[in-house]
Amino acid sequence: MMAQVRLIGLDWGTSSLRAYLYDADGKVVASRQQAWGIRQLPEGGFAAALRAITADWPACVAVAAGMVGSRQGWHEVPYVALPADVASIAQGMLRVEDCASHELWIAPGLQRRQPADVMRGEETQIIGALAPQSLHQPNRRFVLPGTHSKWATVVNGRINAFDTVMTGEMYALLIRHSILGAGLPAESTPSSFVQEAFVRGLLAARDSGGEGIFSRLFSIRALMLAGELLPAHVPDFLSGLLIGEEFRIARLRDDGDFSPLCLIGEASLCQRYALAAQHFHYALPAVIDDAAAQGLWQLACAAGLLVKAQLHSYSGVTA
Amino acid sequence: MMAQVRLIGLDWGTSSLRAYLYDADGKVVASRQQAWGIRQLPEGGFAAALRAITADWPACVAVAAGMVGSRQGWHEVPYVALPADVASIAQGMLRVEDCASHELWIAPGLQRRQPADVMRGEETQIIGALAPQSLHQPNRRFVLPGTHSKWATVVNGRINAFDTVMTGEMYALLIRHSILGAGLPAESTPSSFVQEAFVRGLLAARDSGGEGIFSRLFSIRALMLAGELLPAHVPDFLSGLLIGEEFRIARLRDDGDFSPLCLIGEASLCQRYALAAQHFHYALPAVIDDAAAQGLWQLACAAGLLVKAQLHSYSGVTA
Repeated sequence: MMAQVRLIGLDWGTSSLRAYLYDADGKVVASRQQAWGIRQLPEGGFAAALRAITADWPACVAVAAGMVGSRQGWHEVPYVALPADVASIAQGMLRVEDCASHELWIAPGLQRRQPADVMRGEETQIIGALAPQSLHQPNRRFVLPGTHSKWATVVNGRINAFDTVMTGEMYALLIRHSILGAGLPAESTPSSFVQEAFVRGLLAARDSGGEGIFSRLFSIRALMLAGELLPAHVPDFLSGLLIGEEFRIARLRDDGDFSPLCLIGEASLCQRYALAAQHFHYALPAVIDDAAAQGLWQLACAAGLLVKAQLHSYSGVTA
Repeated sequence: MMAQVRLIGLDWGTSSLRAYLYDADGKVVASRQQAWGIRQLPEGGFAAALRAITADWPACVAVAAGMVGSRQGWHEVPYVALPADVASIAQGMLRVEDCASHELWIAPGLQRRQPADVMRGEETQIIGALAPQSLHQPNRRFVLPGTHSKWATVVNGRINAFDTVMTGEMYALLIRHSILGAGLPAESTPSSFVQEAFVRGLLAARDSGGEGIFSRLFSIRALMLAGELLPAHVPDFLSGLLIGEEFRIARLRDDGDFSPLCLIGEASLCQRYALAAQHFHYALPAVIDDAAAQGLWQLACAAGLLVKAQLHSYSGVTA
């Protein structure tokens, strides 16, 4: 099938690269994914990765977001300050001069000053998630679970505040390298989620009061030694403890604000956060699987890149 | 010089083995240390390690404490319940039948039921630290900093409560394996302690309120990216944040109890904790470098092992 295409979007993080090809109206007509995150580029580096993932696509204008704009990325793009919206983020985009294959623009990340915090890539997902609905809900909270989970507050389409919690990284460190992971059965598959253990962890975090989970982590070892926690339940208990800590902290900050949460991320991970939300008395959150493609399109619009963007014909559309 | 010796004490942990030789009055007349913790034994295992570290010492009765009594140790010795004192711990000691070289007894660890927690080895250090002074101070709190820091409360010579915080292990994990340790200069030497960075971490923990440091860890990365924290200051900032979290939690539990702390452990580590105590408004704590030797002697006394213990002549005393 033939389509008129206008833009290439690149969601380019630490461990993966996703590319989207959009038609004239912003509909994704083709997409590809590779493990070419900025820490594991193919031979030839950034330029080669871009050429390979867009092979046989027309050379449209391209917009990228994520760690590709960090100091370790292709071209460092300075952070934009809070509060930030689609316009101020688009204004912070920089063109990569040493990209021969495409007119390539990289979006900036966001920076909070006090206390210091940063994000790169998640701002684009939030922009994408906001796009269709921002007029209906003036105040929204987004949770983007992952290696470094982000909690962001959006008021009238502007990202006002956000926090990073190293939940995913901490989980991996503790399971792989700490005493808590010693003597466990071989790594469980996602399908073997032990909800009972996960909820037990959630409740331990919730009921830790102002102490938090730092003084509860070792109890995993002690419970296992006492025969009160099965080794096979340790991973999900720990996951519940860490995700529960995110919600415990959020609750302290909320101060009675029960405005709805929106989860953006991979489905099985969002399922855990939805379960946590329920145990911390949040209304059932909305879940968005992937908002980056939509966010990249919005940023290109706001940056005025689509006005001048030439339409190309592309015959590879399969649907 | 010739001495009459009566007992061998073994402080046998995960990563090291210390042996003490005592005279008839409990004075240590010789001591040795090897890296033969239970996870890195020499060829021949436990028996060979014991024979080698006591080579040319008389075959006195021997008392051991620490991970040597764990499931992964030489002989598992069941935990003793709280509250525990020198008598109940001594009563829980088990003799190792398959030790051909010595009459060897291993001390039990302690177990708290709710929430679950365990210790092995620290109970012996606390017993040792108590011995000379217990009559003068009915209520005492002990802090044993390390891989798994222990905070214990002693009332009238009985260990009533304790908590484990994985401070040392968490520090090592985060510096070696996480994003927080990425891009730091080569590992710093103990002499390069940056007090300013350590105190900054302490205060960040103290001022985190009921949230705790879980949501503050990523700020280390953000501060570094913003040029507000030197890479060389990251290790001590993180150390301050983690040790500060121990004190933040302790403060919440204390509820106005300002009874003095006693630190037991390696001098440079205790120095950090003493600095933390000061910033959390505790009176300057007492510091005891090594209390295990004294504790092992006390346990042998209380178990009645010294009554029947034969005196041996030993000519290797150097002082």
